[in-house]
Amino acid sequence: MSFPHGTLQGTSLIGKQVFSGSQAVIQAIDPATGETLSPAYPGLGKGEVEQACRLAWSAFDTYRETGLEERAGFLETIADEIEALGDELIVRAMAETGLPRARLEGERGRTCGQLRLFASVVRTGEWLDVRIDPALPKRAPMPRVDLRQRHVSLGPVAVFGASNFPLAFSVAGGDTASSLAAGCPVVVKAHSAHPGTSELVGRAVQKAVAHCGLPDGVFSLLFGAGNEVGQALVADPHIQAVGFTGSRAGGTAIMATAQARPQPIPVYAEMSSINPVFLLPEALAARGAEIAEGFVGSLNMGAGQFCTNPGLVIAVKGEALEAFVAAAARAVSGSGAQTMLTPGIHAAYSKGVETLAGAARELARGEVGDGPNLCQTALFRTQAADFLASNALQGEVFGSAALVVECEDLDEARAVAERLEGQLTVTLQMDDTDLGAARTLLPTLERKAGRILVNGWPTGVEVCHAMVHGGPYPATSDSRTTSVGSAAIQRFLRPVCYQNLPEGLLPEALRDDNPCGVTRLMDGRREG
Amino acid sequence: MSFPHGTLQGTSLIGKQVFSGSQAVIQAIDPATGETLSPAYPGLGKGEVEQACRLAWSAFDTYRETGLEERAGFLETIADEIEALGDELIVRAMAETGLPRARLEGERGRTCGQLRLFASVVRTGEWLDVRIDPALPKRAPMPRVDLRQRHVSLGPVAVFGASNFPLAFSVAGGDTASSLAAGCPVVVKAHSAHPGTSELVGRAVQKAVAHCGLPDGVFSLLFGAGNEVGQALVADPHIQAVGFTGSRAGGTAIMATAQARPQPIPVYAEMSSINPVFLLPEALAARGAEIAEGFVGSLNMGAGQFCTNPGLVIAVKGEALEAFVAAAARAVSGSGAQTMLTPGIHAAYSKGVETLAGAARELARGEVGDGPNLCQTALFRTQAADFLASNALQGEVFGSAALVVECEDLDEARAVAERLEGQLTVTLQMDDTDLGAARTLLPTLERKAGRILVNGWPTGVEVCHAMVHGGPYPATSDSRTTSVGSAAIQRFLRPVCYQNLPEGLLPEALRDDNPCGVTRLMDGRREG
Repeated sequence: MSFPHGTLQGTSLIGKQVFSGSQAVIQAIDPATGETLSPAYPGLGKGEVEQACRLAWSAFDTYRETGLEERAGFLETIADEIEALGDELIVRAMAETGLPRARLEGERGRTCGQLRLFASVVRTGEWLDVRIDPALPKRAPMPRVDLRQRHVSLGPVAVFGASNFPLAFSVAGGDTASSLAAGCPVVVKAHSAHPGTSELVGRAVQKAVAHCGLPDGVFSLLFGAGNEVGQALVADPHIQAVGFTGSRAGGTAIMATAQARPQPIPVYAEMSSINPVFLLPEALAARGAEIAEGFVGSLNMGAGQFCTNPGLVIAVKGEALEAFVAAAARAVSGSGAQTMLTPGIHAAYSKGVETLAGAARELARGEVGDGPNLCQTALFRTQAADFLASNALQGEVFGSAALVVECEDLDEARAVAERLEGQLTVTLQMDDTDLGAARTLLPTLERKAGRILVNGWPTGVEVCHAMVHGGPYPATSDSRTTSVGSAAIQRFLRPVCYQNLPEGLLPEALRDDNPCGVTRLMDGRREG
Repeated sequence: MSFPHGTLQGTSLIGKQVFSGSQAVIQAIDPATGETLSPAYPGLGKGEVEQACRLAWSAFDTYRETGLEERAGFLETIADEIEALGDELIVRAMAETGLPRARLEGERGRTCGQLRLFASVVRTGEWLDVRIDPALPKRAPMPRVDLRQRHVSLGPVAVFGASNFPLAFSVAGGDTASSLAAGCPVVVKAHSAHPGTSELVGRAVQKAVAHCGLPDGVFSLLFGAGNEVGQALVADPHIQAVGFTGSRAGGTAIMATAQARPQPIPVYAEMSSINPVFLLPEALAARGAEIAEGFVGSLNMGAGQFCTNPGLVIAVKGEALEAFVAAAARAVSGSGAQTMLTPGIHAAYSKGVETLAGAARELARGEVGDGPNLCQTALFRTQAADFLASNALQGEVFGSAALVVECEDLDEARAVAERLEGQLTVTLQMDDTDLGAARTLLPTLERKAGRILVNGWPTGVEVCHAMVHGGPYPATSDSRTTSVGSAAIQRFLRPVCYQNLPEGLLPEALRDDNPCGVTRLMDGRREG
């Protein structure tokens, strides 16, 4: 085994130990050159998956009762350790993904910022949702006993790294950060597209676990070609929830496995979205060319390999729409070819564009470029009547490809909105005088999407408290949650009620004197 | 069709209309006499189920945007209308269930109190979980746009009435109250054991809808023999969530149907629990006889037909346990026979007791009694080693039947705890000197149950803010929630983020001036 990239060893991490599997090998490919990157990562077998899950289980009762400060410190240590990887992480991630340096440096900042946000969330203790209903011994006809509630950790979580954010949605990304924040050990199935990046980050987390003196089962990182490791992970009885970002086929397979277990478990799969953009009439007339420029910029961002890539534009027919279409087509024609993440993603993109080409009219393609795995931006057009009659036109094409849907009038635009599947985002381009039209659309859009934007583009996802990166199926498997932002912690918690417990047995967060200093619902009234 | 019980008509209610189905008929049986009660309730067909769901859908956008005060007033009006039914409701419920008057009057009080509690919950607006992250236009390297979050209603909810609480877990019970509080229209599938009670309450809700000027699709009540109506309801594309209390077989069938839909939906099924009671050594030695009396009282309550009925007692062997067992056996032997809810439940109870008798040693049976459908309290005993080796001994027997598990020591008691399936409740009988043993058990119990009680009995479920009537599978299908208490409203909500919306488009609850007067998370800090 060679070590051409610094410290990489090509191994899985089970707790503090390294494991070299004996199954089929994963090897990264530099998508810009087609070159295979060392080292090779032999896949694990079922026995090792079970071992990692058992270890996570053994760490669970200790880890879930770490104090707020201790757990927050651990999350911050992970961020520090990732930063300490320095440029080796960026260089390796560039080679494995074809993404440019600036993007990856930004993503590293986001990843570490996210870990630190969850540290601050842990410290507030809001997530404990402490509720105290004091005893009412004199209540008639029946006295009330003392009842207290807090949230506890669900259990070990299986996290699947995503291809398109090798840092922010991967080994130490949002699912891992929110699981660890919730007190849940994590077993990560590394994405096969960036194993070296995964190993580097995995070792950083491993170091943080050791540095903080936590049980080593708090974190493991598994490699495996194909679906066996992932399926075994989801089926393992010690795993209590799943975080996944990826394709609809992958997400629904995981949902099926999770439901078929003797004990079904929650799956948080973020899967498929075409992120419709409605161009309302006045905005379209007033600034169609400017909107076209913003739209194509968002469409091309990261070669369109964002869950929030705007793949659908809906507008009412007329001169203003024609002007927009002409400007968007010009911008698309001038779009440079960009390297996609993997040969597989490039192949799926090409197939998706072909399907669109068969069902809609091509308006423009971007530059062809020179090299392997290039995304050639694509813009298509169709009539609302055809869109309403077709499921194929709603399929997600992962990469820079979009479809403009021309409507007869606003009523038809609303019918298109009603016809949509669940989405991560819906965008309105509107001016003040479009307010009436926007109000008419809003109830439908609220039923369809997790986030509604006005006069922006969906490709930026702020990591904050109010963010919802979620939405009705098939955008996600569970519309009641978000995978980005501080509310993501709630996915990995469940409530427990403690009735009449003596002070000495009561969890610290529930004690009368509130030693954790958390906000509480006292007899239904918010306090502190 | 005869009208022997006042206003009963034997019809389903679809919005403001009455429907007489043409499918197989349901007819209540007085379990105390075996007598069939009029009127007959013809079952609906699929077309009528679809009609009810479509009507609920048509009411959804209007109902979900009712103001806090308007929605709270509606819930209170339902309570008023139920009370206005007067004694007719109690008399009919007695005849249909065999439950005594005092119990049903208490349950009516609980049902109306629950509706009024949810009215107060709606008014606070806590459930909106308003979060505002204001714009940071000067932030570097990237400005932040204005982001706001609220929770919105999931959509029409299918509610299945339960047999054992003909008021509190039925037509206008907890699932209905919390769905309506969350802004979700409700389509109830009436339980076939108490159709007349269901019709009376259904008409009370129908009146409240009309009185409050709400769209009539907000509420429908469907009758149907067999599973067809229920399955069609869960499969209907307009239904967005399910509330169910009943058997494990029924709940898992609903889960399967909900997952097989093109768009899977959340199911809140409360199913199966044997509610273990741990007798810790010092408490057992100090007050074994008293504990035995409390235990058998709880075991016999409502003929044991409670989800929280204590069906399992775990203790360490020795003199104190023998004294407890003797006292419990005496109390069981003296237990009067009680009429069970339905012939079907009685038959299932008899079969469950037979299974226990085949796998454990019988300690005592209660009085035989005279009449049909009588529950003859049953107490069994086994060794921990046998319990650990058996799945059958963990099966729920719905009715007054319990099993005492004798352990070698506290370690074995903990092993029994680890072997348990998910539970609604776990109870500890303990004295101060048992604190160490209790602390050792607690982490396991927290993983197993939704509610942990000390020195009480699980059969009372307080409707309050801190209550958790839930727990890991198979106690429920979704351990992240509760079906009793104010937090039950959260089951029917999902978050939506609004990015950069103009004031005129922003939902009222998210406006800067906070016209709804709700608590808000402002930039991560709790406010108001």
